Amino acid sequence: MHDHPAGKPLTIVIAPDSFKGSLSAAEAAAAMADGTRDAFLALGRPEIRLTLCPMADGGEGTLDAITAAWGALPRTMLTVDALGRRRRARYATSADGRIGFIEAAESNGLPLVADAPPQPQRADTFGVGLLARELLDQRVDEILLCVGGSASTDGGTGLLAALGVRFLDIAGLPVAPGGAGLAQIASIDLAGLHPHARAVRWRVAVDVNNPLCGPAGAAAVFGPQKGARPRDVAELDAGLARLAAIVFAETGENMLDRPGAGAAGGMPATLVPLLRAELVPGSTLVAAAVDLARKMTSADLVLTGEGSFDAQSLGGKVAVAVARLAPAGCPVVVIAGRVELSAVDSAASGVTAAFSIAGGPATLDDLQAHAAERVRETTAHAVALVLQSRNLR
Amino acid sequence: MHDHPAGKPLTIVIAPDSFKGSLSAAEAAAAMADGTRDAFLALGRPEIRLTLCPMADGGEGTLDAITAAWGALPRTMLTVDALGRRRRARYATSADGRIGFIEAAESNGLPLVADAPPQPQRADTFGVGLLARELLDQRVDEILLCVGGSASTDGGTGLLAALGVRFLDIAGLPVAPGGAGLAQIASIDLAGLHPHARAVRWRVAVDVNNPLCGPAGAAAVFGPQKGARPRDVAELDAGLARLAAIVFAETGENMLDRPGAGAAGGMPATLVPLLRAELVPGSTLVAAAVDLARKMTSADLVLTGEGSFDAQSLGGKVAVAVARLAPAGCPVVVIAGRVELSAVDSAASGVTAAFSIAGGPATLDDLQAHAAERVRETTAHAVALVLQSRNLR
Repeated sequence: MHDHPAGKPLTIVIAPDSFKGSLSAAEAAAAMADGTRDAFLALGRPEIRLTLCPMADGGEGTLDAITAAWGALPRTMLTVDALGRRRRARYATSADGRIGFIEAAESNGLPLVADAPPQPQRADTFGVGLLARELLDQRVDEILLCVGGSASTDGGTGLLAALGVRFLDIAGLPVAPGGAGLAQIASIDLAGLHPHARAVRWRVAVDVNNPLCGPAGAAAVFGPQKGARPRDVAELDAGLARLAAIVFAETGENMLDRPGAGAAGGMPATLVPLLRAELVPGSTLVAAAVDLARKMTSADLVLTGEGSFDAQSLGGKVAVAVARLAPAGCPVVVIAGRVELSAVDSAASGVTAAFSIAGGPATLDDLQAHAAERVRETTAHAVALVLQSRNLR
Repeated sequence: MHDHPAGKPLTIVIAPDSFKGSLSAAEAAAAMADGTRDAFLALGRPEIRLTLCPMADGGEGTLDAITAAWGALPRTMLTVDALGRRRRARYATSADGRIGFIEAAESNGLPLVADAPPQPQRADTFGVGLLARELLDQRVDEILLCVGGSASTDGGTGLLAALGVRFLDIAGLPVAPGGAGLAQIASIDLAGLHPHARAVRWRVAVDVNNPLCGPAGAAAVFGPQKGARPRDVAELDAGLARLAAIVFAETGENMLDRPGAGAAGGMPATLVPLLRAELVPGSTLVAAAVDLARKMTSADLVLTGEGSFDAQSLGGKVAVAVARLAPAGCPVVVIAGRVELSAVDSAASGVTAAFSIAGGPATLDDLQAHAAERVRETTAHAVALVLQSRNLR
């Protein structure tokens, strides 16, 4: 059990999320690496192998984290925004061309249409579909899609339409684009679906657990921030219910009771049953993209972190996702702006210990202004404790 | 090196100072013990041996810490305050009667004379001497004396007078008590000194490094808070210089350049040369009293703590004193309200790692109001990290 030769370099994997409002994931990882080196120097042990793997949770910064891990630059192509206006959007493919990555908000993001009057019923995901079609044309084996921050409530019908699917009304004519057309759907024509669309593995990162319809659904909860007035909300909710009914009739899959189906204007309502997409937490998707589990295989210690380590962390934020993939017995230390989870709850989630970067009484502004320095210092103390404990008699 | 059988209980010594303003040392130790148990339970390892040893730094709470460690109750006796008024004061003796402990401020403390007009030149340490005489009469081998918080500036002459020493003027008559008489001293008559006074080992805890005289001396720096006006300060300073000159003439010991001689109105000026007292940091004195080094002999982990772990800690506050006495290789973890020392500086002082009880942005009031809970939680995370790191491959 204790067969670690004294001279063998320790392997430490550093895989933090960003600290929202202060540090990007890459900056946080660099500060943790500095702190780790401090601890090794303080204890006179220069032998160390550091692997930096900045993470993300599927939200802002995810494209950067993944392209950095892939050693690739983001690519761009012409697509459309949620209102059908031309714009360039970024996407990424892995170096071997096997995996494609899309951040949906690059096309259908709410900020991109902030300059126009809100059109909550018109907004759609067609532009996201154009990005996906490009990846299918490039023959990727797998598409990783982060949704969230969308302007649309179309149940993903726009995306499918861009891949060749037709949503038809009772007269056999294509319905109107966006959420407005959903209530008229009578059938779905998959004949024109892109030939590779169902051959690739789709993994979709959702950032909420809301159901598709009802008071906690996509229209009721997220519609208003997209400009939906009460009447729009009612119509969009009815439209999504209609879509779910048709999809159920055609595939046998009931999306009404699927947690997370209400994410991103209901995109999972079509992606899951028609493309066999898998819904995963954003941090799990990123971990897969950056091959984190393999990078941690021989880790002696894993350091991760995020702005706040709290009850929400247990629902799949970065720190817990990292902890779950870490090798058994390997200590996992969380460095966070705020630590709200007890040691007992942390242990249950696979996190060995969590430490706040606060060195005493401090305001949020103080902590954000000195975040890099505080992350470095806190990491140094924690790593020093690991090193010294390793030598326990 | 790694010969720790998996089943052998870990021995953990918990020796914190108080957290000023929120937790007594005993309360802090109890919270750390709770946190340690949390960590063991979280990791499913119930085998543990805890030794609680609340500490003190020679200031407030020291008598309580020492009597608790001795399993004794404080004793009381009649003595006098700094103005010669009768009062009962507490002191302590170890169970075997070998060690006596005095907190000087129990007799000559400034708060005890706050009800009277300040008499900075009259105030003396005679009452402290009565306590010491009682211990000598009880035939202790060692007297531990904490000074600090005194109302007097008499160079310790009152204490010596109570033990039978006479400070004489040029006419061979005893000088006036207090600082007022110092300038008249022409010789010191040791003939009446208590027969055991020089047979016992005296250790005096001083809490400052000020010299006896001059701008940083006992009168200039501490006189004003005892009520000394500028003219009093000048006279007291001259008196202490006179005392030092006479002592030098009679013993060859120059107290003018001894750091710490300015503590407690210059008490070391007579205690060191005439009684061969050793000046020690308060935390070192307490550690000796409670036999901390022996208690830590077989420790696998030492936990300590204090309100603020900062540059002053390096000068001999509790945490660093504990760390210096801990067995080589044994991790020493500091839990503190505020952590200002870097991991590198901590390591240099023997502290493995230090963690603040702040779990994120918080005010001092927040931290003080929830100190016990925060100490427990922070300890739990740190101990969990130690336990998990012990199993490092």
